[in-house]
Amino acid sequence: MKKGVRSRFEKSMDELALKFSSSMDDDRNIFYYDILVDLAHVLGLYHTGVLYREDASEIVEGLLRIRDEGFENLSKDYEDVHEAIEARLIELTEKGAKMHTGRSRNDEVATCLRLFARDRMLSILFRLIELRSVVLDLAVKHLDSLIPGFTHMQYAQPNRLAHHLLAYHDALKRDFDRILDSFWRVNLSPLGGSAFASTSFKLDRDFTANLLGFDGIVENSMDAVASRDFLIEAVFDCSSLMLNLSRICEELILWSSEFNFVELSDELSSTSSIMPQKKNPDIAELIRARAARVCGNLNSAMMIYKAMPYAYNRDFQEMNPLLYFSLESAEVCTILVARMLESAKFRTGVMKEKISKGFLTATEIADMLVQKANIPFRVAHRIVGWLAMNGRTDPTLNDLVEAVKEVAEEYLDNLDISEEDLNQAKNAVNALERRKNRGSPSREEVEKMINSRIEALNKDYRKVDEIADRISASLEKLYSLVSELVT
Amino acid sequence: MKKGVRSRFEKSMDELALKFSSSMDDDRNIFYYDILVDLAHVLGLYHTGVLYREDASEIVEGLLRIRDEGFENLSKDYEDVHEAIEARLIELTEKGAKMHTGRSRNDEVATCLRLFARDRMLSILFRLIELRSVVLDLAVKHLDSLIPGFTHMQYAQPNRLAHHLLAYHDALKRDFDRILDSFWRVNLSPLGGSAFASTSFKLDRDFTANLLGFDGIVENSMDAVASRDFLIEAVFDCSSLMLNLSRICEELILWSSEFNFVELSDELSSTSSIMPQKKNPDIAELIRARAARVCGNLNSAMMIYKAMPYAYNRDFQEMNPLLYFSLESAEVCTILVARMLESAKFRTGVMKEKISKGFLTATEIADMLVQKANIPFRVAHRIVGWLAMNGRTDPTLNDLVEAVKEVAEEYLDNLDISEEDLNQAKNAVNALERRKNRGSPSREEVEKMINSRIEALNKDYRKVDEIADRISASLEKLYSLVSELVT
Amino acid sequence: MKKGVRSRFEKSMDELALKFSSSMDDDRNIFYYDILVDLAHVLGLYHTGVLYREDASEIVEGLLRIRDEGFENLSKDYEDVHEAIEARLIELTEKGAKMHTGRSRNDEVATCLRLFARDRMLSILFRLIELRSVVLDLAVKHLDSLIPGFTHMQYAQPNRLAHHLLAYHDALKRDFDRILDSFWRVNLSPLGGSAFASTSFKLDRDFTANLLGFDGIVENSMDAVASRDFLIEAVFDCSSLMLNLSRICEELILWSSEFNFVELSDELSSTSSIMPQKKNPDIAELIRARAARVCGNLNSAMMIYKAMPYAYNRDFQEMNPLLYFSLESAEVCTILVARMLESAKFRTGVMKEKISKGFLTATEIADMLVQKANIPFRVAHRIVGWLAMNGRTDPTLNDLVEAVKEVAEEYLDNLDISEEDLNQAKNAVNALERRKNRGSPSREEVEKMINSRIEALNKDYRKVDEIADRISASLEKLYSLVSELVT
Amino acid sequence: MKKGVRSRFEKSMDELALKFSSSMDDDRNIFYYDILVDLAHVLGLYHTGVLYREDASEIVEGLLRIRDEGFENLSKDYEDVHEAIEARLIELTEKGAKMHTGRSRNDEVATCLRLFARDRMLSILFRLIELRSVVLDLAVKHLDSLIPGFTHMQYAQPNRLAHHLLAYHDALKRDFDRILDSFWRVNLSPLGGSAFASTSFKLDRDFTANLLGFDGIVENSMDAVASRDFLIEAVFDCSSLMLNLSRICEELILWSSEFNFVELSDELSSTSSIMPQKKNPDIAELIRARAARVCGNLNSAMMIYKAMPYAYNRDFQEMNPLLYFSLESAEVCTILVARMLESAKFRTGVMKEKISKGFLTATEIADMLVQKANIPFRVAHRIVGWLAMNGRTDPTLNDLVEAVKEVAEEYLDNLDISEEDLNQAKNAVNALERRKNRGSPSREEVEKMINSRIEALNKDYRKVDEIADRISASLEKLYSLVSELVT
Repeated sequence: MKKGVRSRFEKSMDELALKFSSSMDDDRNIFYYDILVDLAHVLGLYHTGVLYREDASEIVEGLLRIRDEGFENLSKDYEDVHEAIEARLIELTEKGAKMHTGRSRNDEVATCLRLFARDRMLSILFRLIELRSVVLDLAVKHLDSLIPGFTHMQYAQPNRLAHHLLAYHDALKRDFDRILDSFWRVNLSPLGGSAFASTSFKLDRDFTANLLGFDGIVENSMDAVASRDFLIEAVFDCSSLMLNLSRICEELILWSSEFNFVELSDELSSTSSIMPQKKNPDIAELIRARAARVCGNLNSAMMIYKAMPYAYNRDFQEMNPLLYFSLESAEVCTILVARMLESAKFRTGVMKEKISKGFLTATEIADMLVQKANIPFRVAHRIVGWLAMNGRTDPTLNDLVEAVKEVAEEYLDNLDISEEDLNQAKNAVNALERRKNRGSPSREEVEKMINSRIEALNKDYRKVDEIADRISASLEKLYSLVSELVT
Repeated sequence: MKKGVRSRFEKSMDELALKFSSSMDDDRNIFYYDILVDLAHVLGLYHTGVLYREDASEIVEGLLRIRDEGFENLSKDYEDVHEAIEARLIELTEKGAKMHTGRSRNDEVATCLRLFARDRMLSILFRLIELRSVVLDLAVKHLDSLIPGFTHMQYAQPNRLAHHLLAYHDALKRDFDRILDSFWRVNLSPLGGSAFASTSFKLDRDFTANLLGFDGIVENSMDAVASRDFLIEAVFDCSSLMLNLSRICEELILWSSEFNFVELSDELSSTSSIMPQKKNPDIAELIRARAARVCGNLNSAMMIYKAMPYAYNRDFQEMNPLLYFSLESAEVCTILVARMLESAKFRTGVMKEKISKGFLTATEIADMLVQKANIPFRVAHRIVGWLAMNGRTDPTLNDLVEAVKEVAEEYLDNLDISEEDLNQAKNAVNALERRKNRGSPSREEVEKMINSRIEALNKDYRKVDEIADRISASLEKLYSLVSELVT
Repeated sequence: MKKGVRSRFEKSMDELALKFSSSMDDDRNIFYYDILVDLAHVLGLYHTGVLYREDASEIVEGLLRIRDEGFENLSKDYEDVHEAIEARLIELTEKGAKMHTGRSRNDEVATCLRLFARDRMLSILFRLIELRSVVLDLAVKHLDSLIPGFTHMQYAQPNRLAHHLLAYHDALKRDFDRILDSFWRVNLSPLGGSAFASTSFKLDRDFTANLLGFDGIVENSMDAVASRDFLIEAVFDCSSLMLNLSRICEELILWSSEFNFVELSDELSSTSSIMPQKKNPDIAELIRARAARVCGNLNSAMMIYKAMPYAYNRDFQEMNPLLYFSLESAEVCTILVARMLESAKFRTGVMKEKISKGFLTATEIADMLVQKANIPFRVAHRIVGWLAMNGRTDPTLNDLVEAVKEVAEEYLDNLDISEEDLNQAKNAVNALERRKNRGSPSREEVEKMINSRIEALNKDYRKVDEIADRISASLEKLYSLVSELVT
Repeated sequence: MKKGVRSRFEKSMDELALKFSSSMDDDRNIFYYDILVDLAHVLGLYHTGVLYREDASEIVEGLLRIRDEGFENLSKDYEDVHEAIEARLIELTEKGAKMHTGRSRNDEVATCLRLFARDRMLSILFRLIELRSVVLDLAVKHLDSLIPGFTHMQYAQPNRLAHHLLAYHDALKRDFDRILDSFWRVNLSPLGGSAFASTSFKLDRDFTANLLGFDGIVENSMDAVASRDFLIEAVFDCSSLMLNLSRICEELILWSSEFNFVELSDELSSTSSIMPQKKNPDIAELIRARAARVCGNLNSAMMIYKAMPYAYNRDFQEMNPLLYFSLESAEVCTILVARMLESAKFRTGVMKEKISKGFLTATEIADMLVQKANIPFRVAHRIVGWLAMNGRTDPTLNDLVEAVKEVAEEYLDNLDISEEDLNQAKNAVNALERRKNRGSPSREEVEKMINSRIEALNKDYRKVDEIADRISASLEKLYSLVSELVT
């Protein structure tokens, strides 16, 4: 009998075409998942009476053996891992030819993809908890460190380093939530959808979904095999996370350059092949670039998916490596950013010095003019603008009077500002302490934010842990049924 | 006194640079939102005692007047709508110069963007409910219509039209859920974040958030003004929805072409400027292309955002038109797809005819061989493959026997297949009825799915309606405070 | 002595970071090129007197040995192939430590990338010549085959299949020209740019450029190492080509579906794992999707490159796999499309039949009304539109008169149209023959176009052949100098 | 008679659908071009005898009047500008109904797009000549200014500012060449292609092409109307240019931040609405972001174009605004970058100071060890690495000896390095002067490069000028024929 599933045709596939169309190389990512899906399907067929115990038993034994032989031992001459495993199984036992009963590669591969995505998303959630924890630890440590704040990459106003770090945290927390929201759309079983119209063989879709740790099924059988919005969404989640990581990396690159706010650890830097004095933030640069590649993957996936008619099209195959690459990149980069932040040395002395040199409290002086001298904000803004333009970036009371005179003489008579008022306005810590509104960088507000985020982090950890436990329990159930069958 | 905020500089901006950098034209999208934000901010300043009643009152009156004058009456010489409104206000009342107290354009524009996004997302949710309802109505109507199912755009197996439509529905339902998940991350107030470090003026951020119908605040003040992941997420939601719409449109284009499964209504088609006989599915084509533009917007937004250091950068401004365009496109296209489906004439006769002509029940015959003759699936597949290759696409019992003989002689002896068995397998409706697994296209399963989706739709409608009510109540509160102040 | 170039640091790189940052796996694409560059550089250093003959000789011998050992035998513990080769060389000979004199990895990798791109672009040019030749052969063969022409995927007007194929050809010819235009920007040597400021060691940049078959050098040393627009342009050329291939594939998919205009060969199709009757155009679908991946690569490359400050940044490394993948995809897909077209069976009978069934000569009738009855085109258009709307798609003279009466009675009196006139207008071949303008589908025009394109193809072939010869001659020169040195 | 071309249908288009599908708003970009195309087409029809003189004359008069009335006076109720102009023409003269003879909107719009692209590309070429000229002027001015060179945004080696600027120039020169290469593919006339199969009316395609200043025709009539690779290529050219501009802008942003190498002029900066001391590089930031939008446009265009079957599809319409926006952005941004560079104040004092502070001559010292002490480069690299790690960034001879001892004692005996040698190596200007290889930053090489680029610029200017002259002459011819006809 001829090899594989190409039974209809007289001629076998052109070699280059086969190489081009084969997904074997990428399929290494789902080898174990495919075995899992095979096991669950066979247990299901036995459960509904489609397979006899002896058939099921032999097939399961064969599958376990193929799993132990490993992906590397599969023949690479097949179109995909599904075919390769089935062919190897039939080599091991004639009964193998019954495994594909009531199933198609269409639902099979969709199930593998969702298992892969589900597991990697869970890993990323755990990594995000670690990264958030690193950031919060740093915030605790740097509660009293000051840092200049920038807009347009220009010195703007003083800030608390912890407050800056909390901005990182909150963006990452949203990525966490986003991935979790998507998780419920991803962790559903398409198994049983078959080619798209399910099958006349009796299946118990909830039974197999349960064994594989899914939270439910993708009910409509055509939707189950013909939809890849779950894949696109997962790649988007990675893109969003990578973008947030790229922003942190950009700051680490800038700060370890001329700004000199930070020194990255040797373990996460590299040197030049020719300039021996240099310490390069290579990992941060690579993550920044990797963000672009993951976003490019999203773009490819969407471009493939646009205007795809129902149900399955082979185009979908080209989406799979995009998923693998994106999820793995997001996971590795999350770990690496955590390590970079954890091991970086923040030069708080340099940061503090820069605050005093720039005219970072200009806004404070303007606000003081509003509060103490009842000058409208727009006018006060112009008065301080005059100071900046005329180089009085550490203004005395005389400077201030001159500025008022030049810009808005009408306010000069009632200008009841003291030396003390001015000094208060010019002091960065004071400036921060006056910022008492919710979410502001005053010490009290920052501390409050840190505490509430630590609490949220603990809750998030428990959530993810429960999911992981539930999935483990399901797979244990699957393997216990396998054991029953084999022995 | 000089115009605008450029008080620091000696020279005014280069004209081309001003034109290039001005966002006035795009800002028409947020004109009313900016007035709203101004009103809420002034009410807040009055509430916390930063503004006297008479100041607040005059400012509010001025704002209402500017609102009534409309966007078109604003001077277009300003950098943005915020500046233009403030300048007009100062023209109307000197007190206007106090409006910007404790605020920056950074938090102002972020608030406007979130209001815009929040409102449009809500509109899209309502449109999606209508579209889903149209699809479900069609499914009810076509419960007993058959349609050929395709994979690789090749005839594959028979399906129920209602089942096909339910696949549309379920994809759209996920878009609905996705937008709703994002909604909670979007509908939060950044107001009070000021330039990024909040302000020493006393603000009540929860008070203003409440007046504007937000569900809470973006707490960290730097995060509030420097994050645009909410914008990117909203554009992604639109992209995902547009992709699903593009798939429906692709099918409408194909089906109104050679397949001839559907006739679009005149109102949603066009003719040729030169070929008078033609009826072109222009709207479907344009939506298909629009999907690509929205995805390109997502791409632009991500490319802008990559590696942006904190806090605000002017680059963000270029993201705003991407948001406006994407949300508006998604809303209009959702409406148009609903109208196209609703008014299309499905040629169920043609569909049915095509089923009988193709060899769509080939899988059924293979399955029957497994079930009745205990032939392993892979062997049965080959037997039916032989029939296809030899042109026996409407096989007799003799054909079948010949095929078994050619392909797998060893099964010939026990081949206990009757004429009746074969005819059963070859009948499309029977084939569908045998598909009893959850989510299958049997009449019963499809009916069950329709009913549960109608129920879910009603729930979803109530959810969205409640959100809309809550927001309306907040804005009514805002306007009642405004009234109090003005009279 | 410690391994590698990380001499400055106390601590070696974090393992995960090393794995993430290593490009070894992708570098297999440039292994042979790196050896070539090493050889040319050493020959250059010897040529300018920086290296003694014995040093150069030993290094060259070592390099040849490393080349023969192959990529697989290199240690994978290094950051990249450059470091791995250098380290292996130093293992083989102490003199190896002198190889990197006057060079940096920055110019080294840029040179490898350009060699890779140059060679692959040349291959693609040859493949395009083959594909164009296949298309022109088909056009010759199908000079007299008719095909319906479509707009909006609706039947529009009759066409000559050869004319349709020539549209394919002309798009591919532009891709050919585009790649050739880019070739001159790609095939330039950055070697000698060193880190970005060249070096104080005496180099002869033109000498090494010449040995490597470059057409010149990237002169400015900073530009040489810090520019990747050549890479982006090469990926764009692939994207453009892939888009044109995707259009051909789309038509093959459609035409082997319901349209039934074509049957793909078995060697370039596949069947279903479950539906034995199916013949799926998998290769065409995969190429269609691959187009999206290549475009996504372009997108990633641009997103990485945006706002990269000078000179080298590690981000550039992530652009390299995008180049490899894109060029290889474009090459393979060009071959496969050629094979698909060559081996496809065009069902000209079906095409012809469809022409007569649709109302494809409607425009002809309208044009005839203009020409014979002096009716303005817009009015004639409406008259024929009336015929279409009223189902008279094979109109008699009476139908026509009725239509004129209904739509534009004022022209009825002078309506001097004969039965013969109408029949002439309704005949597809006649219709085509009346199209005598340049580029039209009349037999004569199509023949003329075929002939001129065959001529151009021959010219293009000679052009590319000359380039290939020139490069071969250069490399032969390099190897003869190597031989001199070694013996 | 009913309005417009929708003669076939009973029902007119849904209002929202009409608004969605109308391109009127975007068409303002091609209003004048459409008039031009109409004029050329009518002159052509008259030339070939299809139109009588009096018909042609009346139509031409009508067109001139519509041109003078301007776009704003057209009714906006039409699908597009072509229909609107034709309808207005028919209002003005009954003969207008003859204008569309032998033409379709398919070739009409393609012609307009190519004219638009051709003209804008020409403008950009002129702008690029100005920008390159600004850069070369600056290079002349800064021939003797030093600047630190960076890799990985870390101080690396000293450079000459003129050399750095030449790297800008050379990238821009490639963009110039790229656009010019594309120009020949863009500036071809599709007019006469009609719907895709040309027409039986006698046209003289070369005649009209000539009048419109095209360099030839897109010969194959299907290719003429169904290809948009020219559009995609033009948008790519803009993307490539914008990416290069974004790199310059990034450096201007960085340099006007902490690096303090540059001060942008007031005219091209802005201040903060709240922080009066700030001077923000807004224009540079916006151009950086605009680069991303243009790349996103490219992405959209490719995503629309993928898998488009022949011939025309309405999807193409959505590509047009992408073209308009991209070309206009590229033109404006090129002007603005020229102005920014021209008016920026380069703080050469700060740059020079930074060179001496960093250990920028580390490579020089390593090279000196190779040259004077015959130490292999890899070893020398490590010796200097030891100096860097131990803080000896301004090393004395003693430091150097200590380093050799620590790292590679075996070279200590023959270490014949003098104080003078070390000082030479440590001197930045000397270091640069030793770089004599082609393209290096030595004074002589930089001067040579400047001169050759000035020469090339003049040649390029003449090239573009000739093209512009040729086009002007064509249009003058067109208008002289128009005059003849009208009078």
